[in-house]
Order: sequence, then structure tokens, then C-alpha cells
Amino acid sequence: MVYFDNAATSFPKPDGVYDSIMKAMKEYGANPGRSGHKLALRLGREIFETRELLAKLFNIKNPMNLIFTFNCTESLNIGIKGILNTGDHVITTSMEHNSVLRPLKVLEKEGIELTIVKGDYAGRINPKDIEKSIKKNTKLIVTTHISNLTGTIMPIEQIGRIARDNGIYYLVDAAQSAGVYHIDVEKLNIDMLAFPGHKGLLGPQGTGGLYIREGIEVKELNQGGTGSISHLLEQPDILPDRYESGTPNGPGIVGLGAGVKYILQEGLDTIRKYEEELTKHFIEEIVKIENVKVYGPLDIKEQGAVVSINIGDEDSSEISYILDENYDIEVRPGLHCVPMAHKTIETFSQGVVRFSFGPFNTHDEIELGIKAIKEISKEL
Amino acid sequence: MVYFDNAATSFPKPDGVYDSIMKAMKEYGANPGRSGHKLALRLGREIFETRELLAKLFNIKNPMNLIFTFNCTESLNIGIKGILNTGDHVITTSMEHNSVLRPLKVLEKEGIELTIVKGDYAGRINPKDIEKSIKKNTKLIVTTHISNLTGTIMPIEQIGRIARDNGIYYLVDAAQSAGVYHIDVEKLNIDMLAFPGHKGLLGPQGTGGLYIREGIEVKELNQGGTGSISHLLEQPDILPDRYESGTPNGPGIVGLGAGVKYILQEGLDTIRKYEEELTKHFIEEIVKIENVKVYGPLDIKEQGAVVSINIGDEDSSEISYILDENYDIEVRPGLHCVPMAHKTIETFSQGVVRFSFGPFNTHDEIELGIKAIKEISKEL
Repeated sequence: MVYFDNAATSFPKPDGVYDSIMKAMKEYGANPGRSGHKLALRLGREIFETRELLAKLFNIKNPMNLIFTFNCTESLNIGIKGILNTGDHVITTSMEHNSVLRPLKVLEKEGIELTIVKGDYAGRINPKDIEKSIKKNTKLIVTTHISNLTGTIMPIEQIGRIARDNGIYYLVDAAQSAGVYHIDVEKLNIDMLAFPGHKGLLGPQGTGGLYIREGIEVKELNQGGTGSISHLLEQPDILPDRYESGTPNGPGIVGLGAGVKYILQEGLDTIRKYEEELTKHFIEEIVKIENVKVYGPLDIKEQGAVVSINIGDEDSSEISYILDENYDIEVRPGLHCVPMAHKTIETFSQGVVRFSFGPFNTHDEIELGIKAIKEISKEL
Repeated sequence: MVYFDNAATSFPKPDGVYDSIMKAMKEYGANPGRSGHKLALRLGREIFETRELLAKLFNIKNPMNLIFTFNCTESLNIGIKGILNTGDHVITTSMEHNSVLRPLKVLEKEGIELTIVKGDYAGRINPKDIEKSIKKNTKLIVTTHISNLTGTIMPIEQIGRIARDNGIYYLVDAAQSAGVYHIDVEKLNIDMLAFPGHKGLLGPQGTGGLYIREGIEVKELNQGGTGSISHLLEQPDILPDRYESGTPNGPGIVGLGAGVKYILQEGLDTIRKYEEELTKHFIEEIVKIENVKVYGPLDIKEQGAVVSINIGDEDSSEISYILDENYDIEVRPGLHCVPMAHKTIETFSQGVVRFSFGPFNTHDEIELGIKAIKEISKEL
């Protein structure tokens, strides 16, 4: 079986991830931060270690400014809804995931002004278009770092500078980049960074996070027990407790820590260069195949390890089904929760067949993928 | 090591829980409902099986009315905020967890009327007090099933009938009862049932759920990708998708399914009777010890497997520390995120030392607990 669906969730995980989760569950599966006994304290310490590892990875000064969530979608909902109030203006792009656009569409109905900057045929966003969209009441800019449809790497450094220069908050959706691309929240002027734990960071599902820059007032969406300031009926305003109500995914966070450790040990650059190598070769070979359309910038400097294609006018689900059934190759067809991005690159009716690579894919697997596309394109 | 902190999270889990999580992660750790390939489909099927198992356990007619969440706190936030609008009145009790009271306190500031019915010295709630609190604009009653402080079993059947007779929705917090006590949402007139996956249901952390009766309009709190109706920028209104944005905790839900399977195989009655036996004996012995105060109804017909005590006027944290350090017994001291319940039973300043039992505790462990309390009470 060849797994090319790493943009949905990375698979497999490093052995240390599996092992650490089992160890946490079997040896100290208590409720962290709720009791004072040694099991609870041990899990609490391990969770703090994951916080520190992630803070190191993203150059976050204070690990307490990093909150754990259920998934990147929750992180984005907090980052968006926690900061916008009626009358505010927000700028985003047509390349965003429904986890950004759907919350914004709800807010638009409640009186928040929304500008959606359009990408070009390859999913590129021009920072000048964002700059031109700024109004007096612009409070937030939200963009993805890497498109989950076209792999397009967005100019987040330029956008971050524009945001900073204009006193606007910048929220980055790192769903496709965290764990593979350098993200320095200081250098890039990122005010909030939303990320999943189970993609590039190689952790398990049920984990995600949000960095919130010190001093930014972001409302929490849920209230509940925090194991802190329990004598009050008001939600505590300290971080990370304010945003982490209820029992966290303790063993999951430990596993996420093991994923980040693996990345730090292997080296982010090593992992990224390897994925670039695989992606570059894949692109170079499939653009040559007759009857195959390949989307995105098609230049590894501008594109992550996500390559979307179509073969002729064939429905993307049909191609994905053949890949799964006849070649044991797992890809994802359809709209990938980015309807507006599909309209941007004009694939809304056909969908695309998405190949997304991870650190455990091999050169041989890439060859199998290329061979399969060649054969299918001939047969159709 | 003796683990008496099952009300915070159950530990250990049945072997099938560990095994099924590892199997899901290692063999089919894809993104369920996102792609059409065999790994994703397999995980999707397993998640549906867990939904069916839980539906069976709670007598829910349609498994699609059961949504998976991050934890019971998220479930309660959805159940409370999704249904109440400005001008509505809500009734709850002084025995509730902060996961109920903190969201309600936020809503109160936003124009929702709140009545908190007070419990008696043993944490009992009189259904008549709830009935008397009903107003014309009462839309929701929220109560816990079993108090996490005193173990008091609430009269949810009577409250459910009152709610039904008055056309009011009833939300039950089953944090301490799901997986141990019979909960039949039809018979008990429960409109919404919130539960954690990692306590009595013996699943892993990072899982929880909410049952929403067919036809009740409950707003979703997060929007995002649902893997369904992806061409729209509006959140789909079908269940469970509407409330399950972003990647779910796939392997976690599989593990939860294994927990429920274990319960169904062993029998809910068998597990409950065993816990009742342990709890009954524990209560009988510790009430005899001089200088020990024991809270709650102290009658197994009215009390779950939670027993809170204090020794003299000693701080509860100090006692818990001694139990951990000198006896290797893990309990939880303090306020347990229920400040108002502590005021109700008059333990707000001292806190309590909480013993909470699970299906894997043994009679011998109970004896060790009793012996330890005897010794500590003598020494102090």
C-alpha cells in the first residue's frame, strides 16, 4: 500500500509516537492538572514538555502562550471568533479551507465585514492585493501558509509585514506547513498560529494548537473546569488555562511531543528537502504525461508536498478509485473542503486527484505513482 | 500503586482499548470521512460502529444523533450555548461542575436568566425545587446525573418528567455516570446527553460525545471542513457533520468503542454492582473512624462510586499528599471544579479528599485505603 494522503493526516507516525502514547496510557494515564498525585503530575510535566518543544520549533518566547486544542479547526475558530467584533473588517483569501471561510461566513451574517482576496490560476496570492484591501476598521488578516489544494506557498512574510505596519493582527493557518517549513512567529510577525498535531508534526489525531501573542485579547469559546482558580465561577484569564477547559488529550499530547522530537532530531530542513525532492521529481514526470493537467505553481520554491492533478475530463473520484483498487495507492479526490480555491483554479466541477507526500514516502513509491498515472491516462 | 481517581479519568483501561487504538494508528491511521480510499473508509466504519455501540448503550434510536466531541466540557458548551438565546431562562443546580456553571455565568451576562437550585447537605436536589423555579420563558434544565463531589445520584427521571410536562429541554451531564449507570434517553426524557469518553466508558482522553434529540435546533459552536457538502461555504445542517468540524480523534473513537464493547460484554449491571460493593464497604468502614468526616448521602442507593472525606480540619491537599507519598494511594484533593457544590456541603475552605473507584479496583485496594485513613487520622 502506498499512502499519498499526508495532507489529510500523516501516516505512518514515527515509532516514538506510538510508543509514547501507549506508555502514557498504560503507565501514567491520569488526569493532568486535576490532581496532585504522581501520575497526574507526570502527565502534566510531559504535556508541558510538548509545549516547550513546540515553542522551540516556532520560536515562541513563552510556552504558556501556546494552547492545546482538539484540532486545527478549533484553533482557527478561536483565533477568528475570539478576536473579531461587530463592525470589524477581516481580510482573507480565496485559497482558504472551509475551517477559515465557514466561520467567517457566519461572522459576516453577524455584522463583520469580510474581504476575500482572489488567488491566481496557480493559487498564488499577491500581498499587494491584501494591502489594497485594508480599511480603517481592518482588525485581522487570515491566510493559510500552504494551500491544501495546490500546495502553493503563500508570501506570509510579506503579509506579516503589511499586517504589522498597519497595526492589524495576523492569523496563519499552518495546517499544511507546521513540522515541515520554518515558522518563526517573531520573524514572520505572526500574532496567532493555528496548527494540527496529526499532519506534519507527526502526532496523533485529536491534537492541535494555537499560539496567541502575549497581550492580545482573544475570547475563549468554551468555558469549564480548568483545574485552576476552581473557587471561581468565572473562567480564569490566565494562559493556557483560559482556552483549555476540560480534560485534555493527555496521551495524545505526549505523542505529539514525540512527533516534534523526531522532527527536531531529524532536522526540519532534512525533512523538508526530502519532501521537496520527492515532490519535484513527481511534478517533473507527471507534467510530461499526455492528457494530465497538473495544478499549482509547479516550482518547488513555491510549492509544498501537495500535487493536484486531473486526467482528461474524468471525474477525480473515478481516478482515485482506480488508483486505490488497481494500484493500492491512496490519494484524495474531490473538493478537499476548499470550494473557493477550486473556483480560483477552475476545478470546481471536476474536483482534483490530490497526491500529498510525507517524510515516510520513498522514491520507489513516487515511481509507482508516476507509472500508475501514465497507465491510467493511456487507458482512458 | 492504588489508583482511586477514576472520577477524573479511569485508569487503567481494558486491554482491548489499548490494542484497538494502536491497531487503528498503525494499520489504518487515515483521515476518516475525508478520502474515499480503503484506509479512510475502514476508519470511518469503525467510528460508525462506536456511534452504534453508544446508541445501543443509551437507547438512542438513530446513531447519527450522537456527535463526537473533544470532551464532556465541549459537549456541555454546545448543549448549553447552542440552545439558549437572549431572554431565555435556564434552571440548574448548585451541584454542577464548572463546565456547566461557567458557560451559564457567561450567558447570564449576555441576557439569559439563570436559576440555580440549591442542594442539601448531602448534595441532594429536590425535583420540586426545580419545578417551582419554572417560568414562562424557561427553555432548558441542566443537571448532572451524579455529583463528582459527593457522588449523589440525582433524580433525573423525575426531573426529566417535569421538563417534558412543561415543554422544557433537559440536558444531562453524565460525566460520572455514563458506562456505569443505566441511561435510557427515551425513558428518562433526556433531550441532550453530554458524556466524556475517558471516564466510565473506559475510552481514551480526547473523546466525548453529545446526544441531541431529533428535531431540536442546536447551533454549532465551530464551523469548518466536514468532508461533506464541501462545495458550500455554509456549515451543513446534517447530523453529525454539523457539529464535527475538522479531523476527529479517529483512533481515540475506536478506543472508546472498545471501552463500550467491554462494558456491554461484562454487563453494565455487573460493573455497577461491583463498584457499589466496593463503595458500600468503604463508606461503612470509614464512617466509623474517629475524626473523619464523610460527605454525601452515604447510602449506596443514592451514591455513586465517589466518596469525599476530610480528616479533622486538616487541609485536603495535605492528606492527599500523605496518601500518595506514604501509601502510594492516588486520590484528588481540593475543589474539583465545583465551588458552588462545596459551598452547598460547607467544604469550600477545606476542600475534600476524594476517593473514586472504578471497575479495576479490588477489594484489597479498598482495605488498603481504609487502613491508610485509620492510620492518618490517628497520627494527626
